[in-house]
Amino acid sequence: MSQVQRMSRLMAKTLRDDPADAETLSHKLLVRAGYVRRTSAGLWSWLPLGKKVLDNIARVVREEMDAIGAQEVLLPALLPKEPYEASGRWDEYGDLLFRLKDRKGGDYLLGPTHEEIFTLVVKDQCTSYKDLPVMLYQIQTKYRDEARPRSGVLRGREFQMKDSYSFDTTDEGLAESYALHRAAYQKIFARLGLDYRIVSAISGAMGGSASEEFLAPAAAGEDTFVDCPNGDYAANTEAVTFTTPPVDGSAHGAMEELDTPDTPTIETLAKFLGVPASATLKNLLVKVDGEITAVGVPGDREVDLGKLGEHLAPAVVELVTAEDFEGRPELVRGYVGPQGLKIRYIADPRVAPGTAWVTGANKADTHARDVVCGRDFEVDDYFDVVVVEEGDPCPVCGTGLKLGRAIEIGHIFQLGRKYADTFQLDVLGQQGKPVRVTMGSYGIGVSRAVAALAEQTADEQGLCWPREIAPADVHVVAAGKALQTELAVDVAEQLAAAGLRVLVDERPGVSPGVKFTDAELIGVPKILVAGRRAGDGVVELKDRRTGEREELTVAEAVARLTADA
Amino acid sequence: MSQVQRMSRLMAKTLRDDPADAETLSHKLLVRAGYVRRTSAGLWSWLPLGKKVLDNIARVVREEMDAIGAQEVLLPALLPKEPYEASGRWDEYGDLLFRLKDRKGGDYLLGPTHEEIFTLVVKDQCTSYKDLPVMLYQIQTKYRDEARPRSGVLRGREFQMKDSYSFDTTDEGLAESYALHRAAYQKIFARLGLDYRIVSAISGAMGGSASEEFLAPAAAGEDTFVDCPNGDYAANTEAVTFTTPPVDGSAHGAMEELDTPDTPTIETLAKFLGVPASATLKNLLVKVDGEITAVGVPGDREVDLGKLGEHLAPAVVELVTAEDFEGRPELVRGYVGPQGLKIRYIADPRVAPGTAWVTGANKADTHARDVVCGRDFEVDDYFDVVVVEEGDPCPVCGTGLKLGRAIEIGHIFQLGRKYADTFQLDVLGQQGKPVRVTMGSYGIGVSRAVAALAEQTADEQGLCWPREIAPADVHVVAAGKALQTELAVDVAEQLAAAGLRVLVDERPGVSPGVKFTDAELIGVPKILVAGRRAGDGVVELKDRRTGEREELTVAEAVARLTADA
Repeated sequence: MSQVQRMSRLMAKTLRDDPADAETLSHKLLVRAGYVRRTSAGLWSWLPLGKKVLDNIARVVREEMDAIGAQEVLLPALLPKEPYEASGRWDEYGDLLFRLKDRKGGDYLLGPTHEEIFTLVVKDQCTSYKDLPVMLYQIQTKYRDEARPRSGVLRGREFQMKDSYSFDTTDEGLAESYALHRAAYQKIFARLGLDYRIVSAISGAMGGSASEEFLAPAAAGEDTFVDCPNGDYAANTEAVTFTTPPVDGSAHGAMEELDTPDTPTIETLAKFLGVPASATLKNLLVKVDGEITAVGVPGDREVDLGKLGEHLAPAVVELVTAEDFEGRPELVRGYVGPQGLKIRYIADPRVAPGTAWVTGANKADTHARDVVCGRDFEVDDYFDVVVVEEGDPCPVCGTGLKLGRAIEIGHIFQLGRKYADTFQLDVLGQQGKPVRVTMGSYGIGVSRAVAALAEQTADEQGLCWPREIAPADVHVVAAGKALQTELAVDVAEQLAAAGLRVLVDERPGVSPGVKFTDAELIGVPKILVAGRRAGDGVVELKDRRTGEREELTVAEAVARLTADA
Repeated sequence: MSQVQRMSRLMAKTLRDDPADAETLSHKLLVRAGYVRRTSAGLWSWLPLGKKVLDNIARVVREEMDAIGAQEVLLPALLPKEPYEASGRWDEYGDLLFRLKDRKGGDYLLGPTHEEIFTLVVKDQCTSYKDLPVMLYQIQTKYRDEARPRSGVLRGREFQMKDSYSFDTTDEGLAESYALHRAAYQKIFARLGLDYRIVSAISGAMGGSASEEFLAPAAAGEDTFVDCPNGDYAANTEAVTFTTPPVDGSAHGAMEELDTPDTPTIETLAKFLGVPASATLKNLLVKVDGEITAVGVPGDREVDLGKLGEHLAPAVVELVTAEDFEGRPELVRGYVGPQGLKIRYIADPRVAPGTAWVTGANKADTHARDVVCGRDFEVDDYFDVVVVEEGDPCPVCGTGLKLGRAIEIGHIFQLGRKYADTFQLDVLGQQGKPVRVTMGSYGIGVSRAVAALAEQTADEQGLCWPREIAPADVHVVAAGKALQTELAVDVAEQLAAAGLRVLVDERPGVSPGVKFTDAELIGVPKILVAGRRAGDGVVELKDRRTGEREELTVAEAVARLTADA
């Protein structure tokens, strides 16, 4: 049975001013509307209104996970070191991991994500191919010691996450479990009323093959992504992959050296020669696992070292230093060109076979022109390694891409056998032989979704929740004295008796203006005001989003609101 | 909409043998029935069946907390050191507290209980007496680094707890909030189907005045308590308080010294004089904050140092050592008597005014008899400090008490102003002056309640849950081949469509015997068997607790089970 929540007792002190440390809209509004309070850097207390929104989101996630047959479990957040040492993540996580010791000196961590432990659970529980496929999930508190916890609950150091894991015996099975999760995520985010994009992603420290991110566009987002205005492409900027077909380079003249004094940069070179930077080929030297390697990109583009690192992982990429040139006279700083170079040469796809460039001649103060890819030099590996820019062509339709900021609200991975290999997770196959299990890993940031939804739905007056997620269905305001208060409480009780979740503002000595402002700020979708015409049994029903108002009798208002339920 | 959970996919591998490390019944059965698995010492993974039971208990707790107007919040489990340093608990908890550092070297802890943080939340949110009373609660993961985590989920190092806190401006208000919680706890434990006693308790490290424990009698319990067979008294053994009225001691002859060579112990003395040990007065010397103090109890009783310490807290009680006797010739070891003694004398109430004793004469090898309390010596303080024994008289009716083991499932405290003083939690009172707030603190061990309920309800076949708490309403068993399996799945789907929570055992290649054994072990209250008469559409309905069986048509069975719902 629903109960009426009285504002006079509700732990939700609203604030008129933004908190001093708040940078993002959701951070400001969730604090001002009394949904959350900061306990320490990156550690948040969820007050009653915030807890209800968090629970509503968790309920939607739970329903859709149950619907695909995933089973809910709850694993510890405090975990022993050993499984994470076996997977390598005890070290790989670096400072992101909270580590601690127990009274006996044993090493533990606060779980950032649980691949290792789920693998061990399934190893204990499943012995035969008949036990699979299986999908397990939990909605649990996770920990990451962020270097700069900020943006409120958007990036806390303790947060609520739904993490799930699939276990299959075949690649096709994994693809199916992945597809089930992908579809469930689409339903979840649609039910939450979130605007989102699915983008292909780089899997980072998780390992594995295929992975996609669910991004909610928002100014407060920490991710950048590109979006085709035609809707046929979206990607995390680090995952954009541009390809260029070979062009016919046979018409170019022979390579020719040019005397270009004092032109060690693209800028100086382009100016000296009177050509656009895009006609030049920039060759960045890096060390890949200690081996000097050149990376060629058009002169007007920047190398994205993150992308380069992802392509080459697990090899480690470092920038070269002055010492690396010692005893290497063939490497002439500022004048490197790929032609005749005896080191590995990686190029961006824009440096397609047949394209001709102005580039270094591997001699001081000298460049070469008509240096044709495939004729004058060979590329060892093509990787898209440039920083994506607004207006880059859509890989699907060629239209100029838009750059935007977004919040990562979900992430799905085909992990493959990385963890199964670590822990030797095998089941007996149909042929009677052990079969190595293949895994998927899937996450939704539940507390982060609260912030993402706040970011996308708020307006100038404050928060503005979709009904399924709102902390209440109706916010009843007593705008007046005893008569209005009595009517407001009476209507609130009628609505609650009809099964609605009701908040009633019956605070004595608080002006109608303050109550209206608070109601807008708190963002319950329907606001019912007992005001001027309370004596006639007439109330005003206001839609929080559209601002539409309507005078109704109490009976009409109750009927209207319960019909919507 | 309820779903059918198929045993062929359920993450619940049953075991025939008890786990080697399991000492208690609930530990053995919860592991064997596949409800939980150990991840590390004191750290447990809740598998699907266990998670459902945990959620069902949490739901009951939540409903009853909401019903008394408590508001649900969620505070961090990872907490900064400072508030716990201010309250003194950062040190007081000793090794029980998990402590850790973040990447910047800041000190944090994993919350064992949240008085400090709730006090700060209310200090931030409430400014006026009009904002109070208020009650807040959370159902959250708690941490205690137990020296010997054992007994499965009964005493884990990470566990689920409902903790709530009340805030009032007056002592009467606190008493009312306390009474509300007490009544809610009675409803909760009754709904859970737990047999329990409410006993007065000693508040220990929590501080504060009144406190009661809710104890569930169970062999696996770590608490001992006394229980009057007439049902008019129950108490934690440490909290038993015996009182004795004064007796008329005027008939006793004058105190007389006796030559008692080589009788430094009660045993040697009683034997030498041919009197019962209960006629002698034993005087234990201790140091209270460094000051030598004597504690007198009847010679047949033991001093409970824990009880003594609680009575004298915050003073520290230590045993005396040989050095303490140096330069104190009046203290004759083994022959101490209270008469003429110049140190503080504490006595058990059994040493009532007017009672006469044989006791030390403060000379070697010498005792005194007819030493009458109030005539020959005075008692500075009376505290009940003896170890309670089976058969001790009930303080209410005098009947011999029973000693038992029990699990502490709930604890309620009137904390008073301890934390409000630490954090200067004041609100503006009705007279316009600041009023210091008074607090209550109330806990229920949610994961522990799973174990307590398992302990109390299990029988020789396995777990046996009350319906509201069970992981399913019905366990359908396909006892046979394709025909039985088809019928079982069909009935399961009918039951689920009618809103029941259904588990169906359709595992291919598993014998009916194994399925029956597993069903008994898992402990769902109703078992429906599609067996021998499946061809006629006849099933057998079995009550898990009583073992009663009945043959019914499918339609009858569905009607019966849904009518019970």
